[in-house]
Amino acid sequence: MNQKFAKESHVVMNELVLPNDTNPLHNLMGGRLLHWMDIAGAISAQKHCDAVVVTASVDNVSFKHPVKLGAVVTIEAQVTRAFNTSVEVRLTVWAQNMPGGTKVISNQAFYTFVAIDEHSNTMKVPRLLPETDEEKELFTSAVQRREMRLVLAGKLAVTDASELKNILNPLRNETKP
Amino acid sequence: MNQKFAKESHVVMNELVLPNDTNPLHNLMGGRLLHWMDIAGAISAQKHCDAVVVTASVDNVSFKHPVKLGAVVTIEAQVTRAFNTSVEVRLTVWAQNMPGGTKVISNQAFYTFVAIDEHSNTMKVPRLLPETDEEKELFTSAVQRREMRLVLAGKLAVTDASELKNILNPLRNETKP
Amino acid sequence: MNQKFAKESHVVMNELVLPNDTNPLHNLMGGRLLHWMDIAGAISAQKHCDAVVVTASVDNVSFKHPVKLGAVVTIEAQVTRAFNTSVEVRLTVWAQNMPGGTKVISNQAFYTFVAIDEHSNTMKVPRLLPETDEEKELFTSAVQRREMRLVLAGKLAVTDASELKNILNPLRNETKP
Amino acid sequence: MNQKFAKESHVVMNELVLPNDTNPLHNLMGGRLLHWMDIAGAISAQKHCDAVVVTASVDNVSFKHPVKLGAVVTIEAQVTRAFNTSVEVRLTVWAQNMPGGTKVISNQAFYTFVAIDEHSNTMKVPRLLPETDEEKELFTSAVQRREMRLVLAGKLAVTDASELKNILNPLRNETKP
Amino acid sequence: MNQKFAKESHVVMNELVLPNDTNPLHNLMGGRLLHWMDIAGAISAQKHCDAVVVTASVDNVSFKHPVKLGAVVTIEAQVTRAFNTSVEVRLTVWAQNMPGGTKVISNQAFYTFVAIDEHSNTMKVPRLLPETDEEKELFTSAVQRREMRLVLAGKLAVTDASELKNILNPLRNETKP
Amino acid sequence: MNQKFAKESHVVMNELVLPNDTNPLHNLMGGRLLHWMDIAGAISAQKHCDAVVVTASVDNVSFKHPVKLGAVVTIEAQVTRAFNTSVEVRLTVWAQNMPGGTKVISNQAFYTFVAIDEHSNTMKVPRLLPETDEEKELFTSAVQRREMRLVLAGKLAVTDASELKNILNPLRNETKP
Repeated sequence: MNQKFAKESHVVMNELVLPNDTNPLHNLMGGRLLHWMDIAGAISAQKHCDAVVVTASVDNVSFKHPVKLGAVVTIEAQVTRAFNTSVEVRLTVWAQNMPGGTKVISNQAFYTFVAIDEHSNTMKVPRLLPETDEEKELFTSAVQRREMRLVLAGKLAVTDASELKNILNPLRNETKP
Repeated sequence: MNQKFAKESHVVMNELVLPNDTNPLHNLMGGRLLHWMDIAGAISAQKHCDAVVVTASVDNVSFKHPVKLGAVVTIEAQVTRAFNTSVEVRLTVWAQNMPGGTKVISNQAFYTFVAIDEHSNTMKVPRLLPETDEEKELFTSAVQRREMRLVLAGKLAVTDASELKNILNPLRNETKP
Repeated sequence: MNQKFAKESHVVMNELVLPNDTNPLHNLMGGRLLHWMDIAGAISAQKHCDAVVVTASVDNVSFKHPVKLGAVVTIEAQVTRAFNTSVEVRLTVWAQNMPGGTKVISNQAFYTFVAIDEHSNTMKVPRLLPETDEEKELFTSAVQRREMRLVLAGKLAVTDASELKNILNPLRNETKP
Repeated sequence: MNQKFAKESHVVMNELVLPNDTNPLHNLMGGRLLHWMDIAGAISAQKHCDAVVVTASVDNVSFKHPVKLGAVVTIEAQVTRAFNTSVEVRLTVWAQNMPGGTKVISNQAFYTFVAIDEHSNTMKVPRLLPETDEEKELFTSAVQRREMRLVLAGKLAVTDASELKNILNPLRNETKP
Repeated sequence: MNQKFAKESHVVMNELVLPNDTNPLHNLMGGRLLHWMDIAGAISAQKHCDAVVVTASVDNVSFKHPVKLGAVVTIEAQVTRAFNTSVEVRLTVWAQNMPGGTKVISNQAFYTFVAIDEHSNTMKVPRLLPETDEEKELFTSAVQRREMRLVLAGKLAVTDASELKNILNPLRNETKP
Repeated sequence: MNQKFAKESHVVMNELVLPNDTNPLHNLMGGRLLHWMDIAGAISAQKHCDAVVVTASVDNVSFKHPVKLGAVVTIEAQVTRAFNTSVEVRLTVWAQNMPGGTKVISNQAFYTFVAIDEHSNTMKVPRLLPETDEEKELFTSAVQRREMRLVLAGKLAVTDASELKNILNPLRNETKP
């Protein structure tokens, strides 16, 4: 059957923060983390698609805590939903400063990837089957995030974003006098 | 005076796409580009703040065209607005495949950076003075993008995002019976 | 209590084989894999010791299958036994060539690490508590591997390696006339 | 004649320990050294085989002295014996901390490499001719190290390791009542 | 028309000095800067030639001021003259130590590049049209620098270097009794 | 005695040309080679000075033969002369394309380095004692190369370059009517 369980794409990546990953204050640079997240996401997407994938988009990412030189960064990635030729991957990042640090969530993001065949054309990807409650919730909300991406990229009018309208309901109520 | 012109933070960065920047199809990996954009943005922010800066957030980025091995990637960065201890930087990316390629816009993104003093504390940054029409437009719209970031990060309720409400006006009209 | 469960040091690392990791035949170079294994092992040892660690030794490693450009390499690391100031970590490496490859065990190795305090002196590490049958077997056999290391490093005479003698029993029997 | 002198494969490699090669205590990471040794060994093996080579195995390596940031690492490699399609290379590593450090042996190891033709098949390699006493001793003892590797990799029973039995003679004597 | 303006090859590259670019005193290493200059020069040469280019030579470069970790290095490159199958590129390097540093010229150099077609043969390049006074001066003096290169490379006798003789006039006068 | 033999600074470095060292035609990039030469030269200078050194200048370098992916690059470095606080190092580069390539001289260059103490001040270096004929010739001609560097850097008038005048004798004769 051309479908896969969400958990089959689960990927964990651990990275040690080395000197060249840091700025002059010895904190992990944001761009390096985005690069690691991209690789973790691509591995997860490849596991689902069984194909080479290319990054299509990255959603808003914010960086909360400074991550120090020598810290261990743990990135978890899992496909949340497959569309026609692309997948959305959720990335969760923890960081544990060493020694003596506790492991704290550093950030979370959604990347999308497109599957590519050997002629560099896009190709159909297997459907994703969510199983747990969290997987189901992420599967459902993926449609809203997709609309948001299309609106932000100027490919969809806000007025045509039917899912977004539901989220923004409070706004409608509040502004109707 | 503790203020600077927008153009004083203008930065151009050119990078050659080398083998290690590419995936097995010889296309530039998205994560590498995000990393280069972070460095270009940090340089621009440093020029404005005259301080070490750390990445605070990256807005939605989408990747349009495949960039090939050997291509020249040009990244332009300029501070659009300074807030209390942070700045927003706009990044525009062009790519020119070689040989014979024309230079096309690859993508555009907004990064924010926080200025840090030698004790790793945040510090006040100079105000930004926009001059051209484009700089003024970006200066004004920076408030909306900031609200969007806060809403997406769960730090601001949609109903309190006064600037966003104005953008989403069409939605209100359309949903009123 | 100054002791930890074996599973608390469990680490998974995924790496994408990029061009610079490969030789001119597009196979992963052995040295790069040894480097990744060292990082995965150090992360695992750090989790157990809650200290900076340095590599003390690597046991015999053999490379079975060529791993191709674009493959996903998965490294699992877990502390098998803690000695006075050092730990032994078992590393298991899988590789999955992309696309269409099945995940096969590539190799397995034991690294040892020494815990170091902020003055660069060795320091005592927590005891390790094995729970599963496999963890217990690895905990027990760690003594033999340690003797083997000392013999190979010329720090222990074969005749004093009491555990090794038990393994080499067949030899004794076979050579007795 | 399809044979070469040992010294024809002699290779010296000097490396400067740069920040990204070190851990947070500014010591050279073991994995980086293993990677450099692999490259030095591959160059030596290539000189003997005049072919692309891939790493087949690494023998037990132990790390004695911490090597500091800025130190010069010198790696000497030379083929000790050629088998049918593979060679064994001995690597000797010196380190000299800077400034004012004396050059000390850091470690020694044996790597084996397999020669590969343009179709990724193994290929016959030239025979090795040892000349000096040290080269002859290494040539002879290579057979024992090879048996040890096969035993450790589970490909040879200890009882069939005829060379190893000779080394382990003391053991037999000592355990005979 | 097979000719291009000098300004069409103008390239700016900004780099942030990261730990691995520095020596143990935290100064940018000269070799890293030469490498960046080579990339900036190659990008500029590619823009003029619309072809892959390879470095043919580097003229004398001297390094004046130490550039510190965290500094921003700005490299400007522009083709000064096109010869038959090669171009000369002038590189100017500024460095600004952070925070609080002023931007100072670090050094200047001339690199030459040869244009290569897809069969690895050299190929004709477009002529260069200088416009400003500085571009014209560089265009004219390129002939002298070329002669100097050929003399230094032993490919031209000093006595046949007609342009150099003009520069060295003072010498002739001074040595005439 | 504060002096050292030339041969004490002799350094050999071997590097394997990996994908990230090459351009899209799979040839070693000139800038990467200049970087390797800088490291080899710095190691040689450190051995003579027993101090951290920084690159002061690079003389004209030309690149003759394309060096291919997978080739072995051998760099030999040796101090030719010590001045007050600096040394000149000669670098000779061979390249051997693999498989089947013969080892050919790729290029030769002179780098100069300045010795730096722990306060980042320049410091006196040991005198150099040349022994062989070649070492003596390089020791003598170092003065001419030094004058050439000063003239090219605009720090010495051609008319004051007493050594250069001797070399350029043919010119004087030829231009005398």
